[in-house]
Amino acid sequence: MNITETTQGLLKAKQDKNLTFEAIGKAIGRSEVWVAALIYGQASASSEECQKLLEILGIPESARDSYIQVLHKCPSKGGLITHFPPTDPLLNRFYEIMLVYGVPMKEIIHEKFGDGIMSAVDFTLKVEKDESKADEKRVNILMSGKFLPYKKW
Amino acid sequence: MNITETTQGLLKAKQDKNLTFEAIGKAIGRSEVWVAALIYGQASASSEECQKLLEILGIPESARDSYIQVLHKCPSKGGLITHFPPTDPLLNRFYEIMLVYGVPMKEIIHEKFGDGIMSAVDFTLKVEKDESKADEKRVNILMSGKFLPYKKW
Amino acid sequence: MNITETTQGLLKAKQDKNLTFEAIGKAIGRSEVWVAALIYGQASASSEECQKLLEILGIPESARDSYIQVLHKCPSKGGLITHFPPTDPLLNRFYEIMLVYGVPMKEIIHEKFGDGIMSAVDFTLKVEKDESKADEKRVNILMSGKFLPYKKW
Amino acid sequence: MNITETTQGLLKAKQDKNLTFEAIGKAIGRSEVWVAALIYGQASASSEECQKLLEILGIPESARDSYIQVLHKCPSKGGLITHFPPTDPLLNRFYEIMLVYGVPMKEIIHEKFGDGIMSAVDFTLKVEKDESKADEKRVNILMSGKFLPYKKW
Amino acid sequence: MNITETTQGLLKAKQDKNLTFEAIGKAIGRSEVWVAALIYGQASASSEECQKLLEILGIPESARDSYIQVLHKCPSKGGLITHFPPTDPLLNRFYEIMLVYGVPMKEIIHEKFGDGIMSAVDFTLKVEKDESKADEKRVNILMSGKFLPYKKW
Amino acid sequence: MNITETTQGLLKAKQDKNLTFEAIGKAIGRSEVWVAALIYGQASASSEECQKLLEILGIPESARDSYIQVLHKCPSKGGLITHFPPTDPLLNRFYEIMLVYGVPMKEIIHEKFGDGIMSAVDFTLKVEKDESKADEKRVNILMSGKFLPYKKW
Amino acid sequence: MNITETTQGLLKAKQDKNLTFEAIGKAIGRSEVWVAALIYGQASASSEECQKLLEILGIPESARDSYIQVLHKCPSKGGLITHFPPTDPLLNRFYEIMLVYGVPMKEIIHEKFGDGIMSAVDFTLKVEKDESKADEKRVNILMSGKFLPYKKW
Amino acid sequence: MNITETTQGLLKAKQDKNLTFEAIGKAIGRSEVWVAALIYGQASASSEECQKLLEILGIPESARDSYIQVLHKCPSKGGLITHFPPTDPLLNRFYEIMLVYGVPMKEIIHEKFGDGIMSAVDFTLKVEKDESKADEKRVNILMSGKFLPYKKW
Amino acid sequence: MNITETTQGLLKAKQDKNLTFEAIGKAIGRSEVWVAALIYGQASASSEECQKLLEILGIPESARDSYIQVLHKCPSKGGLITHFPPTDPLLNRFYEIMLVYGVPMKEIIHEKFGDGIMSAVDFTLKVEKDESKADEKRVNILMSGKFLPYKKW
Amino acid sequence: MNITETTQGLLKAKQDKNLTFEAIGKAIGRSEVWVAALIYGQASASSEECQKLLEILGIPESARDSYIQVLHKCPSKGGLITHFPPTDPLLNRFYEIMLVYGVPMKEIIHEKFGDGIMSAVDFTLKVEKDESKADEKRVNILMSGKFLPYKKW
Repeated sequence: MNITETTQGLLKAKQDKNLTFEAIGKAIGRSEVWVAALIYGQASASSEECQKLLEILGIPESARDSYIQVLHKCPSKGGLITHFPPTDPLLNRFYEIMLVYGVPMKEIIHEKFGDGIMSAVDFTLKVEKDESKADEKRVNILMSGKFLPYKKW
Repeated sequence: MNITETTQGLLKAKQDKNLTFEAIGKAIGRSEVWVAALIYGQASASSEECQKLLEILGIPESARDSYIQVLHKCPSKGGLITHFPPTDPLLNRFYEIMLVYGVPMKEIIHEKFGDGIMSAVDFTLKVEKDESKADEKRVNILMSGKFLPYKKW
Repeated sequence: MNITETTQGLLKAKQDKNLTFEAIGKAIGRSEVWVAALIYGQASASSEECQKLLEILGIPESARDSYIQVLHKCPSKGGLITHFPPTDPLLNRFYEIMLVYGVPMKEIIHEKFGDGIMSAVDFTLKVEKDESKADEKRVNILMSGKFLPYKKW
Repeated sequence: MNITETTQGLLKAKQDKNLTFEAIGKAIGRSEVWVAALIYGQASASSEECQKLLEILGIPESARDSYIQVLHKCPSKGGLITHFPPTDPLLNRFYEIMLVYGVPMKEIIHEKFGDGIMSAVDFTLKVEKDESKADEKRVNILMSGKFLPYKKW
Repeated sequence: MNITETTQGLLKAKQDKNLTFEAIGKAIGRSEVWVAALIYGQASASSEECQKLLEILGIPESARDSYIQVLHKCPSKGGLITHFPPTDPLLNRFYEIMLVYGVPMKEIIHEKFGDGIMSAVDFTLKVEKDESKADEKRVNILMSGKFLPYKKW
Repeated sequence: MNITETTQGLLKAKQDKNLTFEAIGKAIGRSEVWVAALIYGQASASSEECQKLLEILGIPESARDSYIQVLHKCPSKGGLITHFPPTDPLLNRFYEIMLVYGVPMKEIIHEKFGDGIMSAVDFTLKVEKDESKADEKRVNILMSGKFLPYKKW
Repeated sequence: MNITETTQGLLKAKQDKNLTFEAIGKAIGRSEVWVAALIYGQASASSEECQKLLEILGIPESARDSYIQVLHKCPSKGGLITHFPPTDPLLNRFYEIMLVYGVPMKEIIHEKFGDGIMSAVDFTLKVEKDESKADEKRVNILMSGKFLPYKKW
Repeated sequence: MNITETTQGLLKAKQDKNLTFEAIGKAIGRSEVWVAALIYGQASASSEECQKLLEILGIPESARDSYIQVLHKCPSKGGLITHFPPTDPLLNRFYEIMLVYGVPMKEIIHEKFGDGIMSAVDFTLKVEKDESKADEKRVNILMSGKFLPYKKW
Repeated sequence: MNITETTQGLLKAKQDKNLTFEAIGKAIGRSEVWVAALIYGQASASSEECQKLLEILGIPESARDSYIQVLHKCPSKGGLITHFPPTDPLLNRFYEIMLVYGVPMKEIIHEKFGDGIMSAVDFTLKVEKDESKADEKRVNILMSGKFLPYKKW
Repeated sequence: MNITETTQGLLKAKQDKNLTFEAIGKAIGRSEVWVAALIYGQASASSEECQKLLEILGIPESARDSYIQVLHKCPSKGGLITHFPPTDPLLNRFYEIMLVYGVPMKEIIHEKFGDGIMSAVDFTLKVEKDESKADEKRVNILMSGKFLPYKKW
């Protein structure tokens, strides 16, 4: 993984304070996935969000400005995974899902919505732990993207 | 896309009968996404499922055997998308989601479950149309995979 | 280039009738670029648009249904250029523009709009011939895409 | 992104002085896009342009020579985006536009101009913010390149 | 190979103490292959396993914490081999086995088990030295993975 | 997959006679994996082995010569999997095993044998079904290759 | 090489009439290299040039129209070499020249002309045979491209 | 570009002394292109050539030995351009010339010389500025390589 | 492998007449390796060599012309191996030799000859079977290429 | 090239003592090619060989241990050439030989030996200078690898 110094600093602070992304998310009022995306340099935050984040992480006042400059900026996204297809087995399963179920999803979306796409920008993502069954735990992932119809002109 | 003659025959029958994947799924008792995966050669069906599918699609008795041979076999999966990253904008958004939110998802999953992966085999996927808001339609995708912890030995 | 039989049939009819994309566009009430995109399998048309297109191209009634089935469907987009970077010098210049001016454009867009993207779906594109100068002709390309701000959740 | 120390120094000065590319462009008498291209190492400047740029950015006299040496030189262009297709969603949309609308643009250009290309060297590019509609902002991009006909010999 | 400082430190300690992976494995109560995977950053260990490992390797108390932080974390797996196919002849033979015997193995597994896969997560691997024959030594590799049947839904 | 007509003919005969690779292997006196490799064009057979194979598959005398010509020849091996890393999830797990456990295996082999490789030519491979546990089936793969020490000269 | 039927037809006619590219070039009034480029689908010809070409090649009147349609069209250029770097040793030397002498040429061009490029569109290329030395023949290649200075705006 | 410290030192000396490659070439008695190739690490020089080069560049006696060691050695050639196809527009035009005119050149060379290649080792290259026309400057490139016929044995 | 119809025809004739490359080579007066290269489309033959080859292979007079046209032409070389690195284990060993011993060979050649290369055009290659040892057979490959010193100019 | 500090240290000592690989080889009792392979990190040496090598290179006693640790270890082989196909013209000729003569060699080897490969591990390689002809020097390369027949099981 291709991780910046800013990300390393924030992750270390998170580890030192023994915080989960869930706890940070609650403190800021944002989803844990979005918080992880922010810390990994895949999203940008408002000044207020920056302050709350740095406070709960216990970053000293004197060091906050340099963090805010990075967190506040529109980042160059998508560069975390330096090899593709990803070599990490967990990440590789998402690639496999796309290979196997990508075209079926495309067909179902067109059948339900017409010609267009699911936005990956006006988009939210949740990860949930399903422990309802005795002998298995399930990872549930909920994606929600605005449907964008193709414009004609 | 790299589509077999079997898939073409089934898609043509579906179009001639003006059926949706949803309707076929209900007739077979399976999800519309799984049905699309089956028709696109990404899953295998039991004899009973094959018969129900071919019946609702109106495939004549005489032609069913050759379809069943293919639908019943364990396919070579994942070859539908011949260029990668996918050039189709709808499919490309799933690639983008992986690039931007892949590592955040990995971290959240490890935080909630420990070292392991979400299975893409003991796995289900739903596509839903959310029309609850007046000014936008949303594509909701629900993935559910069994958590597989890494074995030590 | 990777061209389907449908595209070949429509291009041959266009050539036989000696029509420009501009003329076809006017007859249908759509931009010439969108018409070219439709004929090259990169867009989908309404039934009415299909009928107008096939009429002006002089496709006989008997052959129209098979054309409409393809033109009406949501296509698998983006597969025309089979080698990338494109080997054709005209297409290669667009690749070069992205390499040289891509990051500057990104920075300017963020400076003017904040964190988000220019949509390539809610999007229009025009090609104009500028002959205002005596000793040179210029190709002017006008792109217009909706700004999509990144959602936080 | 692959950014040199010169670029980093200029971007930091720009941030410290809280200047936009637009403001710098006006001070130098050049377009904001060209100024961004210059700062990102994709263009070369005259001595006069260098001086104006360094002055408005507040670079001290003593440090200017080393900046001028770089800004004045013909750079090795096009190396900013180190992964291709670009992983950043905003940049990726330009790639997508080329995949979907590239061949249609090629056909329209040939129809209007004959055999040749749009120059990417005798070329200008503008980014405009269209706020004429109440419920959407649009990114407008205007490219203008000299048409170069293929020479026969 | 792409080796972290943690891995280098552990390998140096192993060399200084003249320990084999087999000896370390016995001390910890784990297989030598799993121990090698752990040291090379491909697995994560419990606190107890970490302590035992660092003790047998003679890592001083004061340095243990930073090792434990890394060994305890769920790593980003699969990044050791930076060129693929691997250039190292020993590793390349595994690639060759996959090319030549991969599809035959797939067919045999489906014949014996039905549609599904061999897990690489609920998985163990042993390397044995077979010296039963006078004129040759053989490398025996024993892989065992849980069969995961494809879920239908 | 990239399958020749010879392979298709043999697979069809196998299916028509409802034979498993195991049954064919027993009839010929060879392992089922080697038989699958032969049928998939990854190995060459003696005249006697060819005759036995064609007999059990019920290939008529008149058609045997053209099969023997192919089965008897030293094939161009390794071309079955046309995309790499393999897109099929079952095959992809072998790739993943190499990424995660490849370097650990290399280190263990060197520790046990010294500098050299496991041959993939003087090599055997078995696939076994382990049903000894009530709640899981396991795929066991046993590879055995001659150790080849690096020659010095 | 990736050769169209049009190219094959023209090359066969050239061979049947035992003509060199040089002889064809003289008959048309164009360089032999341009003629070869035209026949290989890398250039477009005027109606008059088409007629002269087809006449000297002895293409019968009845077959000319279909040739003219292709020769007259602006082709999709650059797709002849399907593998890159080229596997053919003669072509590979041009790739090698670029690797070894490309940057030196770039520096010399900038030193002589300033920031800009040599056009490959307003461009001519000659191949000459130098037999002035007794013990060697030399291939001389003369390229001439218009210098295009980078526009500022 | 991938430039060594030796190259950087020589280029800096060249800039400090305000020398062109042409001037250095004259002083050494070699072509400016060869001199640029030498400085960029693509050629090796005799001791005498090294001394002349270092003298005209004003490298102090004490530093000359380390330069001579590098300039005198047979270098690993061809590694300057780290991305291929080259992203720099000037270099990219040479790639484009190969794509469009490579096969025509091959055919012309075979027609004039028979089966063989133009050497890129027994090879010279000149860059000339043609200002004979009022309204355009042209870059002329003259390559000359020994013809090497294919040996039969 | 990417084999033309000409090659297939010649190989079939060779098999039907039960000839080895060695026998054909003796009949023509050329090395067996060169003969194999010719038949696989990697070399060109004189008219006399063509006649001798077709005679010994028993190609009927009426079919010879079309073979001669191909065998006599300068072929597009190097396209036999369609995947690279080669998937075939025998071919892959040559790739491995280059990876492991390529740089050592380069250094030894420079040490013995100075700056230059071994020609692959003024080049011969032999394959010999060494059976001098009781318990092993060895493949001996003898390559001989003219040394080409780098020209200075 | 990707060269370790160990290799750099040994090459510098070799240059300082003005030794050829041939001289070192004689002193150690090994071939010059193997010595070069060892120094470039592609082979491993016995303790005695290490001592002899370090002695003739004049490495001081105090520094020998760290060299021995590396030279004695089984290295990760094949990583010297970081770009493939190799950009260096001398190395590239070996790649070209494989492309042009690889399949002919495969066929000749199978004709002489049957189904199997030439080992690249039980393998030796010599480079010789042939000066027997007045007007040319030739590079002769002699490879000898054990033939390994494919095992059946």
